[in-house]
Amino acid sequence: MPRPDLLETFPNPCPGRPYEIAMECPEFTSLCPLGGIEGDAGDLKQLEGGAPDFATMHIVYVPGDVCVELKSLKLYLWSFRNDGIFYERAVNRILDDLSAVVKPAWMEVKGDFNIRGGIKSVITAHVGARTG
Amino acid sequence: MPRPDLLETFPNPCPGRPYEIAMECPEFTSLCPLGGIEGDAGDLKQLEGGAPDFATMHIVYVPGDVCVELKSLKLYLWSFRNDGIFYERAVNRILDDLSAVVKPAWMEVKGDFNIRGGIKSVITAHVGARTG
Amino acid sequence: MPRPDLLETFPNPCPGRPYEIAMECPEFTSLCPLGGIEGDAGDLKQLEGGAPDFATMHIVYVPGDVCVELKSLKLYLWSFRNDGIFYERAVNRILDDLSAVVKPAWMEVKGDFNIRGGIKSVITAHVGARTG
Amino acid sequence: MPRPDLLETFPNPCPGRPYEIAMECPEFTSLCPLGGIEGDAGDLKQLEGGAPDFATMHIVYVPGDVCVELKSLKLYLWSFRNDGIFYERAVNRILDDLSAVVKPAWMEVKGDFNIRGGIKSVITAHVGARTG
Amino acid sequence: MPRPDLLETFPNPCPGRPYEIAMECPEFTSLCPLGGIEGDAGDLKQLEGGAPDFATMHIVYVPGDVCVELKSLKLYLWSFRNDGIFYERAVNRILDDLSAVVKPAWMEVKGDFNIRGGIKSVITAHVGARTG
Amino acid sequence: MPRPDLLETFPNPCPGRPYEIAMECPEFTSLCPLGGIEGDAGDLKQLEGGAPDFATMHIVYVPGDVCVELKSLKLYLWSFRNDGIFYERAVNRILDDLSAVVKPAWMEVKGDFNIRGGIKSVITAHVGARTG
Amino acid sequence: MPRPDLLETFPNPCPGRPYEIAMECPEFTSLCPLGGIEGDAGDLKQLEGGAPDFATMHIVYVPGDVCVELKSLKLYLWSFRNDGIFYERAVNRILDDLSAVVKPAWMEVKGDFNIRGGIKSVITAHVGARTG
Amino acid sequence: MPRPDLLETFPNPCPGRPYEIAMECPEFTSLCPLGGIEGDAGDLKQLEGGAPDFATMHIVYVPGDVCVELKSLKLYLWSFRNDGIFYERAVNRILDDLSAVVKPAWMEVKGDFNIRGGIKSVITAHVGARTG
Amino acid sequence: MPRPDLLETFPNPCPGRPYEIAMECPEFTSLCPLGGIEGDAGDLKQLEGGAPDFATMHIVYVPGDVCVELKSLKLYLWSFRNDGIFYERAVNRILDDLSAVVKPAWMEVKGDFNIRGGIKSVITAHVGARTG
Amino acid sequence: MPRPDLLETFPNPCPGRPYEIAMECPEFTSLCPLGGIEGDAGDLKQLEGGAPDFATMHIVYVPGDVCVELKSLKLYLWSFRNDGIFYERAVNRILDDLSAVVKPAWMEVKGDFNIRGGIKSVITAHVGARTG
Repeated sequence: MPRPDLLETFPNPCPGRPYEIAMECPEFTSLCPLGGIEGDAGDLKQLEGGAPDFATMHIVYVPGDVCVELKSLKLYLWSFRNDGIFYERAVNRILDDLSAVVKPAWMEVKGDFNIRGGIKSVITAHVGARTG
Repeated sequence: MPRPDLLETFPNPCPGRPYEIAMECPEFTSLCPLGGIEGDAGDLKQLEGGAPDFATMHIVYVPGDVCVELKSLKLYLWSFRNDGIFYERAVNRILDDLSAVVKPAWMEVKGDFNIRGGIKSVITAHVGARTG
Repeated sequence: MPRPDLLETFPNPCPGRPYEIAMECPEFTSLCPLGGIEGDAGDLKQLEGGAPDFATMHIVYVPGDVCVELKSLKLYLWSFRNDGIFYERAVNRILDDLSAVVKPAWMEVKGDFNIRGGIKSVITAHVGARTG
Repeated sequence: MPRPDLLETFPNPCPGRPYEIAMECPEFTSLCPLGGIEGDAGDLKQLEGGAPDFATMHIVYVPGDVCVELKSLKLYLWSFRNDGIFYERAVNRILDDLSAVVKPAWMEVKGDFNIRGGIKSVITAHVGARTG
Repeated sequence: MPRPDLLETFPNPCPGRPYEIAMECPEFTSLCPLGGIEGDAGDLKQLEGGAPDFATMHIVYVPGDVCVELKSLKLYLWSFRNDGIFYERAVNRILDDLSAVVKPAWMEVKGDFNIRGGIKSVITAHVGARTG
Repeated sequence: MPRPDLLETFPNPCPGRPYEIAMECPEFTSLCPLGGIEGDAGDLKQLEGGAPDFATMHIVYVPGDVCVELKSLKLYLWSFRNDGIFYERAVNRILDDLSAVVKPAWMEVKGDFNIRGGIKSVITAHVGARTG
Repeated sequence: MPRPDLLETFPNPCPGRPYEIAMECPEFTSLCPLGGIEGDAGDLKQLEGGAPDFATMHIVYVPGDVCVELKSLKLYLWSFRNDGIFYERAVNRILDDLSAVVKPAWMEVKGDFNIRGGIKSVITAHVGARTG
Repeated sequence: MPRPDLLETFPNPCPGRPYEIAMECPEFTSLCPLGGIEGDAGDLKQLEGGAPDFATMHIVYVPGDVCVELKSLKLYLWSFRNDGIFYERAVNRILDDLSAVVKPAWMEVKGDFNIRGGIKSVITAHVGARTG
Repeated sequence: MPRPDLLETFPNPCPGRPYEIAMECPEFTSLCPLGGIEGDAGDLKQLEGGAPDFATMHIVYVPGDVCVELKSLKLYLWSFRNDGIFYERAVNRILDDLSAVVKPAWMEVKGDFNIRGGIKSVITAHVGARTG
Repeated sequence: MPRPDLLETFPNPCPGRPYEIAMECPEFTSLCPLGGIEGDAGDLKQLEGGAPDFATMHIVYVPGDVCVELKSLKLYLWSFRNDGIFYERAVNRILDDLSAVVKPAWMEVKGDFNIRGGIKSVITAHVGARTG
């Protein structure tokens, strides 16, 4: 279950200047919410949901008063590991959770998912307006 | 024969926020509509049309009320396999079929076709207006 | 159905000298022999077997008295398009058919198949002995 | 001698929608118009002009009523093979010939020429205005 | 817990000819067996062990009487997902489990693990002798 | 300790023309300010702070009256070597120090840091307005 | 018509030491000897044969008493430009012509031809024995 | 000593149409104007200045009445070979010399210099306004 | 000062089978032992030696009774950070220290150092014999 | 004029162990010994010979009692800058000069020269026997 309570912040060391922080997280994994898709993964009792999904999450934001602490972000992303969640919901959920904690001027989350059924999917969402 | 009836959708999990969904489908194949082009492919009785064409289809859209279901998209793209169709018509046909079902705020389809006669072709079409 | 009868040859223009001919065929496609794998592809009436497979076939040989004619090889590979066949069998079948026609001193066929279920497969088989 | 009379067209299958067609032609070759440049190429009696030039031609356009037929484009580009022509003139000539036949809303031709004398040249010209 | 009982085989379609089957599995993930390494991952109650590890597993073998079935291999590799295991042990365990089921003439397993602490690790083990 | 006093300048050789100077410095290294992070690096008595960090620093600016001297920039960047500093502070500090000395029309500093905990970070800040 | 009479040599500056000279010639072009293949190229009166072929020629040798002069090699390769010749014959012809003039201890010619009909061909031949 | 007198031009073959000419010159070399930098290069009597510098020069322009002749550009760039000159001055000097001769609507010169002291430098300057 | 006392081991989990462990460490840094090389780095009082060097260390071995523990290897490599040492000595020192602790059947250390003075250096040393 | 007297050595820090030192020197430049080749370079009075040549020199050796000092190697390679020399002679000359000073167990020099007349040349020579 996603654990936004794990997210921690630290004061922005340069609050008066708008600047961007970009993080690339190639080790995101969750489960497909459809238990039996692509065969009989449901036979695997230790997986609560369905087949594993893998993605690289790209997170970019312009910090306001606080920045997200890197290790807490890692732990938060780990908390999706055994959760069943659709691609579109995962990306929007991460955007919701992170922006609620960081309250950025602008934030974008892009999930670049591995090939499934011969198709690669990339979902991109943002809050706020990016200003030059 | 293209089968738009195979396309299925699911409700957009985040309908209030404009965001993009991009899908890369490197396994698109259809047939050239000209039966005898580049030799005697017409000799091959099991092919209804002409020589096979291959493309990577890139589909990007901003969802409205619904998103296209990934597996149904795969089956829809398979339905071109033994159909004779020109490059320009294939790309516009996919755009027509998908946008009719998904009713996106904006959608773009780009077909990146393999080299034929020493020339590589890329066709790009869209409906609606992309907004930042 | 694979059509080895389509294969044609021409006399080796330099029969006294051992040399290698390598051909890379990135547009090989066949069908999975298991009708219902990865969902309900069987619903797609126009496909005789199951879901499409895609591969790049690498063929290398030292010609004996004859060389394989390039266009006939293309037509032969097209003849797998709507046939259900396992990876291992496809590669060995192509090796059998080609070596029967060309009677090479040495021939290797390598099938490099697209990702399925998150796994990429490469099958390599040969007949004869490669000599320096 | 460039042969624009070889160019053929077919009706745009989707005339009401502005979309782009891009073609990459990596096998363009012509001759340098300066007979004796870089040595004594002029000794080579079978070449009517000077040393061979090689380029990849990139052609992009928004079709109006017609599209250029791919095979006729190939034959047209072949017709430069034994002609002496400067880089700048070749690119503008192709743009003139193609736009006269296709009457596109917008067309761009980019010639990316191989290194000569340690220098690589790229010439880019267009007609009309690209609209989003 | 690794589940070798999930592995299934099918008869080698070409048993008289020695040939190679190579599989690349970029989605292997397990857990570090040291609960508290690199911080407080142990806080994450849903993870039984420690921090997640990620690897691409490369498996190559010369089949004997049987080949490993691709989907069962996928399920077997999934069974490491929530298990704590060292790199060296994981690679040797996969080699042991697979070779016990497939009884190959030769088999090699290479685990290419993601960077940890600024260091990338690759472990390679084999059974049997590779013959040309 | 960062040593901005090491920075030297030379007169802009072309002060009347706005132009850009970009420098890529792949050998930036500093220390993590948290002494004990990622284990017991604190055991290493010769390191004053915590674990080493590594980054490529990208510096771009439009010079005013002076340009930064390349060797003095190298020495200034070396002065972070044994200093504990957060990513966000390091990038903004370099921007502050350099812009104070060079007084550019526009300057951007981008720090592209190596993977830590499976996450890659890139911080980008600027002063002034870039004009075409 | 190939013109081996254009090939010139110069004395090996280091005849007592076996060493290798490798030349990569990416601008080789000839014509298909089959006049009407892949359509009506025969309509193009200025081409004596059929459709143009393109290749990169890789030539490696251990010189004996002489080395091939680079500019004369370029002119010799140009002499194939308007000649109809099969891939296999072109590679063996170049090997024959060059080795007759240079009399090398060992020489290899590899022709890497552009995609035709979706298939890429590479032909490799040699004379003599390569010694370490 | 830079020799702008070597630059020659030819009439623009398409003066009524604004188009771009881009040239990439990877073989630019000059000397550092500081005689003794990076050691005792000054010991090398045949070098008039200091240590050699290497760069790729990228030149792009929209021609007016004339285009720069390619071979004369090559000779002009060679004339920096044994001259001591700073990066910033070299790029602006080339821009000054070329634009004085070509009188372009717009011209940009970018010098991409090799790593020195672990830092890579790129200098970019232009005259005129680029119009779409 | 290199600290081999930091190196720790754990028992080889598969001691009866010869297999390889490869580690790539891209964050190795030490100091040049010549205090004043490439300018006045000696001015930087906090550096005990001269200018920083950077390398990627590649370590491969066949374990005997023990394997090197990954985190202890990281700390050992950090201990070169503020030490002055020549390339050749660094690589051989690491090989000596590691092989003394691990007592491998075979071990190779390759140091791939960053460009200095326009030259890149790679040093490779090993102990023992690699067996297939 | 090549200046082998500039080469300096230092004692091999690990003389009892055979190991390899590889150096990649991408900034080698000399002049073509044919004064007027490829045009009127001879007009350029400051060049003593003909047109500039550029190469990357790869030097690998197993040191005996001494290693070549890196900075002296750089100065030695600079001494070819304004010298007219053929490719084959340059590579063999460097091998002769270096091996005379270093007296290595084995040494190889490979010169990878830039494209001239559309052809790339690589010359490779060695002295001694490489032992595993």
